[in-house]
Amino acid sequence: MTTDIKATLRAQRIETPSWAYGNSGTRFKVFAQKGVPRDPYEKLADAAQVHAHTGAAPTVALHIPWDAVDDYADLARHAREHGVAIGAINSNVFQDDDYMLGSVTNPDPRVRRKALGHLLECVDVMDATGSDTLKLWFSDGLNYPGQDDLRARQDRLAEALSAVYERLGDGQRFLLEYKLFEPAFYATDVPDWGTAYAHCLRLGPKAQVVVDTGHHAPGTNIEFIVAFLLREGRLGGFDFNSRFYADDDLMVGAADPFQLFRIMHEVVRGGGLDPRTGVAFMLDQCHNIEPKIPGQIRSVMNVQEATAKALLVDAAALRAAQDAGDVLGANAVLMDAYNTDVRPLLAELREESGLDPDPMAAYARSGYSDKIAAERVGGTQAGWGA
Amino acid sequence: MTTDIKATLRAQRIETPSWAYGNSGTRFKVFAQKGVPRDPYEKLADAAQVHAHTGAAPTVALHIPWDAVDDYADLARHAREHGVAIGAINSNVFQDDDYMLGSVTNPDPRVRRKALGHLLECVDVMDATGSDTLKLWFSDGLNYPGQDDLRARQDRLAEALSAVYERLGDGQRFLLEYKLFEPAFYATDVPDWGTAYAHCLRLGPKAQVVVDTGHHAPGTNIEFIVAFLLREGRLGGFDFNSRFYADDDLMVGAADPFQLFRIMHEVVRGGGLDPRTGVAFMLDQCHNIEPKIPGQIRSVMNVQEATAKALLVDAAALRAAQDAGDVLGANAVLMDAYNTDVRPLLAELREESGLDPDPMAAYARSGYSDKIAAERVGGTQAGWGA
Amino acid sequence: MTTDIKATLRAQRIETPSWAYGNSGTRFKVFAQKGVPRDPYEKLADAAQVHAHTGAAPTVALHIPWDAVDDYADLARHAREHGVAIGAINSNVFQDDDYMLGSVTNPDPRVRRKALGHLLECVDVMDATGSDTLKLWFSDGLNYPGQDDLRARQDRLAEALSAVYERLGDGQRFLLEYKLFEPAFYATDVPDWGTAYAHCLRLGPKAQVVVDTGHHAPGTNIEFIVAFLLREGRLGGFDFNSRFYADDDLMVGAADPFQLFRIMHEVVRGGGLDPRTGVAFMLDQCHNIEPKIPGQIRSVMNVQEATAKALLVDAAALRAAQDAGDVLGANAVLMDAYNTDVRPLLAELREESGLDPDPMAAYARSGYSDKIAAERVGGTQAGWGA
Amino acid sequence: MTTDIKATLRAQRIETPSWAYGNSGTRFKVFAQKGVPRDPYEKLADAAQVHAHTGAAPTVALHIPWDAVDDYADLARHAREHGVAIGAINSNVFQDDDYMLGSVTNPDPRVRRKALGHLLECVDVMDATGSDTLKLWFSDGLNYPGQDDLRARQDRLAEALSAVYERLGDGQRFLLEYKLFEPAFYATDVPDWGTAYAHCLRLGPKAQVVVDTGHHAPGTNIEFIVAFLLREGRLGGFDFNSRFYADDDLMVGAADPFQLFRIMHEVVRGGGLDPRTGVAFMLDQCHNIEPKIPGQIRSVMNVQEATAKALLVDAAALRAAQDAGDVLGANAVLMDAYNTDVRPLLAELREESGLDPDPMAAYARSGYSDKIAAERVGGTQAGWGA
Repeated sequence: MTTDIKATLRAQRIETPSWAYGNSGTRFKVFAQKGVPRDPYEKLADAAQVHAHTGAAPTVALHIPWDAVDDYADLARHAREHGVAIGAINSNVFQDDDYMLGSVTNPDPRVRRKALGHLLECVDVMDATGSDTLKLWFSDGLNYPGQDDLRARQDRLAEALSAVYERLGDGQRFLLEYKLFEPAFYATDVPDWGTAYAHCLRLGPKAQVVVDTGHHAPGTNIEFIVAFLLREGRLGGFDFNSRFYADDDLMVGAADPFQLFRIMHEVVRGGGLDPRTGVAFMLDQCHNIEPKIPGQIRSVMNVQEATAKALLVDAAALRAAQDAGDVLGANAVLMDAYNTDVRPLLAELREESGLDPDPMAAYARSGYSDKIAAERVGGTQAGWGA
Repeated sequence: MTTDIKATLRAQRIETPSWAYGNSGTRFKVFAQKGVPRDPYEKLADAAQVHAHTGAAPTVALHIPWDAVDDYADLARHAREHGVAIGAINSNVFQDDDYMLGSVTNPDPRVRRKALGHLLECVDVMDATGSDTLKLWFSDGLNYPGQDDLRARQDRLAEALSAVYERLGDGQRFLLEYKLFEPAFYATDVPDWGTAYAHCLRLGPKAQVVVDTGHHAPGTNIEFIVAFLLREGRLGGFDFNSRFYADDDLMVGAADPFQLFRIMHEVVRGGGLDPRTGVAFMLDQCHNIEPKIPGQIRSVMNVQEATAKALLVDAAALRAAQDAGDVLGANAVLMDAYNTDVRPLLAELREESGLDPDPMAAYARSGYSDKIAAERVGGTQAGWGA
Repeated sequence: MTTDIKATLRAQRIETPSWAYGNSGTRFKVFAQKGVPRDPYEKLADAAQVHAHTGAAPTVALHIPWDAVDDYADLARHAREHGVAIGAINSNVFQDDDYMLGSVTNPDPRVRRKALGHLLECVDVMDATGSDTLKLWFSDGLNYPGQDDLRARQDRLAEALSAVYERLGDGQRFLLEYKLFEPAFYATDVPDWGTAYAHCLRLGPKAQVVVDTGHHAPGTNIEFIVAFLLREGRLGGFDFNSRFYADDDLMVGAADPFQLFRIMHEVVRGGGLDPRTGVAFMLDQCHNIEPKIPGQIRSVMNVQEATAKALLVDAAALRAAQDAGDVLGANAVLMDAYNTDVRPLLAELREESGLDPDPMAAYARSGYSDKIAAERVGGTQAGWGA
Repeated sequence: MTTDIKATLRAQRIETPSWAYGNSGTRFKVFAQKGVPRDPYEKLADAAQVHAHTGAAPTVALHIPWDAVDDYADLARHAREHGVAIGAINSNVFQDDDYMLGSVTNPDPRVRRKALGHLLECVDVMDATGSDTLKLWFSDGLNYPGQDDLRARQDRLAEALSAVYERLGDGQRFLLEYKLFEPAFYATDVPDWGTAYAHCLRLGPKAQVVVDTGHHAPGTNIEFIVAFLLREGRLGGFDFNSRFYADDDLMVGAADPFQLFRIMHEVVRGGGLDPRTGVAFMLDQCHNIEPKIPGQIRSVMNVQEATAKALLVDAAALRAAQDAGDVLGANAVLMDAYNTDVRPLLAELREESGLDPDPMAAYARSGYSDKIAAERVGGTQAGWGA
């Protein structure tokens, strides 16, 4: 069995986001760090470090316009030279002054057209980079009751999504992201999986839901949503991160590793590790106070550990206990896997792949951190809005 | 305009639940009250008092088997004699020892068959009483991770719902209720509106979602769900009650009257007060420490007041402010309506209908409370499980 | 009785914060608005508008260093010339790069000394401006379990608070603010009222707790805390704002006006409207998408309306119903007051004071908004961090 | 180091509650189980099984009047014969009809006197059984705003606590429990640790706070409270259980094992494993759908595993990383301990003590379950209220 588990773990691909390598923060303060990239090329170089040490992060998500360049083919070539590839294209319709009251759901048709234009340009970037996935997150919503018409905004949303859907080429898809709150504080236009699911269902199979682990109300059972969407064939992938009360930028697995395990258990149960299902495992998190590249390495490792534990669940024993109504027995099968220390298994796996068994230590020893701190002087560090 | 508002308010029907008239409580204690009904006939008599004093509660929901009788036609006749009619039939598949690990989602096929049998019997009760609505709430779920297979339970749920759907006659429908938690504490098989919606969508137009105002995670924007389901034509109705942190048995409007107003605003906006939409306004609450009939009267009045305020919203001014992006102006239009004291309007409306303008005072003066306390001695009081 | 209520309302003072007049936003985007102040002098001029139209906002809180000037006496004179006075001094130990891992609780003694130095300087500003209140909010906390020692940080906090307390002069006090989360996402060093209370208790009567209405976990009964602190003589005041799920910058009364009423009911019940208790009514909110001066005017009005309703509660009837165990009756006394439309009363009050009965309309007519948009061109708009 | 850890683990005492062995459930249904005790003597016999197999549960908490007997000395003797002793005495002032509107905070002085009388009788039981700890939990609170006076109820609470405190003998103490909500749904008279702490502080050192892990609002950092109370010398102990959204009856460690570990880390950090601190480790949970004795055994093991992991934290390395501001390094030290599989260590420890390394399997093999199912026929099963 361990052979199978290892093969599955070896095949798992975890995408890191270009914006994790730039500076980020809260509304109160963005703390600058040394050596932070100043352009998309440097971001990709940093992302390549994560892949070099983990062997599990071969693609990098872009955020447009943060990563806008004149020549996307050149950027893709640069990525390949560093051993990685361009992953999902993330649209950004929230940082222009025009979007204060919404983008595709804005009451003003001019702003809606502008926002839609940007979304269609993102598909152009997909064409140029070979990316097959567009990730759509809308900050659209309301701060105050009555501020705008909830229903009319759904109509506008549906119209924009339909236009984007029509523009998708063969082999391209979009993932629609939902979020409970923020930056809109009273109502969000895509607040929950049900809303995202309903829109996707009307459009067709190229529209799927992405589950951001930090975007739910307290008490929400996220693994239930994962199981449900897999059953419906509508789980497009994950945006992984952690959250205690709010903010969705902590390292995945840092706040509730047991929850992450339960999520991966449902992924395994629903066949989601099979690449043919198209379930994408993406990180969507920033590192406000911890160093960025190690933060990503640790996050990739956390996903791997949760996956390994989920693969260790004795499915036959679990099913037998479940069918027998053995509450404690069934729970114990799950907990046995969770309580297992899988770090030796993953270390072994890395060594078999010619990697250092301890990616964090290997990166620390590599001198890369000092190198970029010394070299990347002058210019403007990349960050949200930069 | 007031004429239209009055006509709409006069047409609004609020259904009270038979179980609100019996004893209820928490896991810690059920406090008994004097004069509580001992059978479904006495419950209907009490419900008739609520209608007599408010003129707005002409139907009464039944809960089977709590309200099981040998002769439903006789029960329906009894209701009519008291001036009310039988409303929705509520199934109960949670109080038999067999349902400890679930009803229609139980891993044991024998229990599933038993539960389905009960649901089909409820349709028989609909036939016998002339009720057109079946309300389905499932307590099914898990207390512990791993206890059962989340996905297999969805398959079993779908199978049962399909069988019930097939059994529905012309002019009959079912409403599927969702609930975040309780009595299952780790996972609930219909935890959110998305799950209920997805099941209904697969089945057809006779399957609709019912929104219980007490069944959401903290921070959930309930009026958004209402607007969304109305837009999709899938809002079957409401189970009204209030909740602060948990428990869904407080009087509707008692915890957050502004939220109730916002919900009714979306109902008005989406045309849900038009009886042809089939949106049912039902109370689903119990009265643990307050007297039951006055508790229901007050609740009916709270729904009426929220509806009246929603009807007072100046729709044209609101739309104009929204289209102009006037955040404070649009919010102010909504708040103007909310801040209006509509009690005089409703008092006037009652007087025009030959009712006492103050239903609470009229009931208190009626002597009914003393009468039932004196007469209903001996026998077993009705309550949950009785 | 109305005479007494009017007198009490006329005496209520609501402090507005200088930072409400500058630009603000979320981590995603700060949307700029026209006419926003470029220095503390312009902020005070804007705050004076709020007072001019409401008659209820005669003081303005400062935030140091955002409002740092060379000559505080001159700033205070400028305020007086505009008809307002300097209110509480708010310290800011969260926007310097040194504070990434904390200010007074930082593991590095050098940073702690720097932070303490700033706090002591704020007392100097109090001396210079005649302010009697220092408001202390610490963003200090942890993003990750283990990041620092929770207990050691309490020791460091106690040490800093003690030093500030010693520095306070006669007639000066500090208010300690608590906050559930943000910008620290795992643990906050003053997360709840109990922590703030315990520290204040050890120090003495010049240390009091400030309740920010937006800083609690879901389900927290804020009015209970208000009642408890008033009973203990430790309620220093309020930072008013609204919050749905998170972010504490919406206008007070916008998210849950019934909660605001319940809070003011406990203030009235505990004697907190008596100026001798020292309970300060301060706004602490920003206006991200709505115009700032009208946002403040509306907020002041919301506090006034909630206060007026609380004053209308029939205390004798309430006590009688409570003592009789009349659950519905007691609740009805409270709701009667809440459901009353107090806007006519407040309009009358304003007219009696020579003010326009409708402050929002009066401000809109005044032309001030156009004037500042035209005049305040060039320079850097004030905002968080500016 | 392992030697020290083993010695500490061997010394840890976890108290099980008598009520965990009886039937329990939700407001919807209590599912009966076979072999459930019919009196306090049988409960103690079952509790003795948990100790026999774990070696870590030598005391049993009683609940009065559920466990009221004529001869407490005889009950204590019975316990000793089964190898266990009587632990904390838990008062119950929530299951009498008189307590519908509260016990010690009831507006009716007669009810308050009755409730206080019961509390004093519990001290008599302490005297009779040799118990040194009284645990006070009050279900008192309000369902509706205005129902009673929040502040007057605090006065009444303080009066009752003071009377109980005066009655305590040498070597006796009481622990005051707080709870966010339930069975009161609007306001609870001891809702949070701050309230419990403030009351204890006024009374003296024999009054301490007990932390029930299931009694907090979402997002509350429980380990912070633990650290704070230990620093103040006011942590009397724990009521352990798990909760996802609500209900506090799931097995400890079942919902969030990482949280339990963090709590035990603060206990270790604050010296709380030293028996001289008097920190009591008690289970307070019921088993609604799982068998009761195995449920308790598993829970005891979960506490042991969390404790073992906390003891494995490399304190020196943690402190060094914290002092260096090494966010990821410090977190990694904590996670290293958490990710260690401590089950082999605990198995070894049991074998060294002459116990079976696998208590769950040993109990299953013992035949005790079949024996009680066969023997305990007739009579009334114990349960809440029985």
